Amino acid sequence: MAPSAIAPGTAPKWPGLIETYRAYLPVSEQTPVVTLLEGNTPLIPAPAIAARVGKSVQVFIKYDGLNPTGSFKDRGMTMALSKAKEAGAEAVICASTGNTSASAAAYARRGGLRAFVVIPDGYVALGKLAQALLYGAEVLAIQGNFDQALQTVRDAAAHYPVTLVNSVNPYRLEGQKTGAFELVDVLGDAPDWLCIPVGNAGNITAYWMGFCQYHQQGKCRQLPRMMGFQAAGAAPIVNGAPVSHPETVATAIRIGNPASWDKAIAAQEASQGEFKAVTDDEILNAYRILAAEEGIFCEPASAASVAGLLKVKDQVPAGARIVCILTGNGLKDPDTAINHCNNQVKDGIAPDLTSVAKAMGF
Amino acid sequence: MAPSAIAPGTAPKWPGLIETYRAYLPVSEQTPVVTLLEGNTPLIPAPAIAARVGKSVQVFIKYDGLNPTGSFKDRGMTMALSKAKEAGAEAVICASTGNTSASAAAYARRGGLRAFVVIPDGYVALGKLAQALLYGAEVLAIQGNFDQALQTVRDAAAHYPVTLVNSVNPYRLEGQKTGAFELVDVLGDAPDWLCIPVGNAGNITAYWMGFCQYHQQGKCRQLPRMMGFQAAGAAPIVNGAPVSHPETVATAIRIGNPASWDKAIAAQEASQGEFKAVTDDEILNAYRILAAEEGIFCEPASAASVAGLLKVKDQVPAGARIVCILTGNGLKDPDTAINHCNNQVKDGIAPDLTSVAKAMGF
Repeated sequence: MAPSAIAPGTAPKWPGLIETYRAYLPVSEQTPVVTLLEGNTPLIPAPAIAARVGKSVQVFIKYDGLNPTGSFKDRGMTMALSKAKEAGAEAVICASTGNTSASAAAYARRGGLRAFVVIPDGYVALGKLAQALLYGAEVLAIQGNFDQALQTVRDAAAHYPVTLVNSVNPYRLEGQKTGAFELVDVLGDAPDWLCIPVGNAGNITAYWMGFCQYHQQGKCRQLPRMMGFQAAGAAPIVNGAPVSHPETVATAIRIGNPASWDKAIAAQEASQGEFKAVTDDEILNAYRILAAEEGIFCEPASAASVAGLLKVKDQVPAGARIVCILTGNGLKDPDTAINHCNNQVKDGIAPDLTSVAKAMGF
Repeated sequence: MAPSAIAPGTAPKWPGLIETYRAYLPVSEQTPVVTLLEGNTPLIPAPAIAARVGKSVQVFIKYDGLNPTGSFKDRGMTMALSKAKEAGAEAVICASTGNTSASAAAYARRGGLRAFVVIPDGYVALGKLAQALLYGAEVLAIQGNFDQALQTVRDAAAHYPVTLVNSVNPYRLEGQKTGAFELVDVLGDAPDWLCIPVGNAGNITAYWMGFCQYHQQGKCRQLPRMMGFQAAGAAPIVNGAPVSHPETVATAIRIGNPASWDKAIAAQEASQGEFKAVTDDEILNAYRILAAEEGIFCEPASAASVAGLLKVKDQVPAGARIVCILTGNGLKDPDTAINHCNNQVKDGIAPDLTSVAKAMGF
């Protein structure tokens, strides 16, 4: 159970998630592997966060924003597209305005499939769709709301040779569980706590699946407490009831009725974990701390895991080893960086050394 | 010289560039390593590009946009900041409006140093600076042009305890050369051709340093032909003269008088390589092919390497193994994705299955 070492002076060859974890995934030699070499994302020590928690804890950041399309969705999409291609599908479809559509489009085009993305007309800013469009997604804007878009993709998948890759696709969780495998492989065991943002609740479900599978195989000695954090304005699991109009700056977890609600509750109960809500202010504070003290730039939703850890720090056992999952790259949401950065340009400085030195504080 | 294999079912632990390549870098046990676990970026097969070249070539994409701040600059900054900290610096400074400032800020804050960024007043859009500001850079806008900003940072570094981390910092090339090491470690030898975008000409210089060092150590049998590609509107090396007003959509290589001009010429001559110019249209075409056929989203400047390969494909030997370097993440430049994507949203579709199916072509 020791962490695997690499030879000094040698970069390892990473063949992507499916090849690495083939023995733990529902694939066969017949499965055509559609991969962008996703996964194998850095597990970065976070000493500034650890110092805020105190009690000699160790905190690590799993920076899944360094996946090929910039989010953890790629872990699921490599599986979903490989299985869709194996089944003979020529296209995939989803209703999404963000990370899912970008990932689905990239993997579909990589695999030679068409990618359809259905969205509500007039609702989505072009900037949010630019990545998916560039990957070659065929984006259809319907005269209806997001629920109608979801119904439409279900109907299309039921009646045409198009595979649904929304969160109901079971292979996505299979791929996402490999995040847990990577943590154990690098740390040598599961962490004591796993802090994770909760929106649709698929990722917390998938991580728990991964830890349990590795535990059953004897790859880790322990299982972590699963600590799920929702945005206060979109906290149906914490509140115990769906939220009709979820609102939060953490758009990637702005979900009022999570698809994997029951499974997430099961993971929390089995692991003696908790669900808690964090406010937008707490999320943005963690977002700024991560960037300015750890050097890590994430999506606002990702920062919910760190905001949550800081909120419940009094519950953390001394010496605990904690992993916080950052699900998406900060470059995905430049508007939040611009609007919620407390740091300003100092302008109007004369172009001479004395003036510049003064502005620098010398 | 075989590629290093990893055990199936095990993610390798990657300690960052400096720890991995310590024996090849100017660091000692006394050097405080400032790292975000940069490097170890995917080397992705590019079958669609290879098919366009023909002649049974193999093409791989080195996707360095998956470094922690989204560009290859992180390879140099982990070295520059570690050495600055070792020397007792409390701050670093650079004149940059893009990837360099973001990387410098992230690594400086990671190492507990201040990061100063000097820019010309009124010249830079806030979106370009948002990442550096969020990382905690202290951005000073002077009443002058970019040349004056450069002169100011040189003066400040000469007179105050502030380390210059612009491209003249020699440790940056030392860090960047590790890109060559990773290619050899994964491929088992150097490629036949290395295609790389050329702006300030530091990266082509650094890759050549890396290949030569590995070759001297017996880690690779051969050296690649170094194929450097400049944007036609910013092609001083190709033209043999500085360009006063460089213009190109590939902003990261929009440089009229490269800092590493002589070293880049030396690399090209020693490797029997070439410098060629590619037009903005060729760059944008490669940018769209990479996204829509390979599933890889890069900065426009990065696509110059692929545009160049496609331009000189008749010169490629049959069966050659070619690596194209993609230096930055496409998410760094959302405006280009929006403005130069030929793919449109289809809107105004009625929210019923028949209308949607018709829009899908069924």
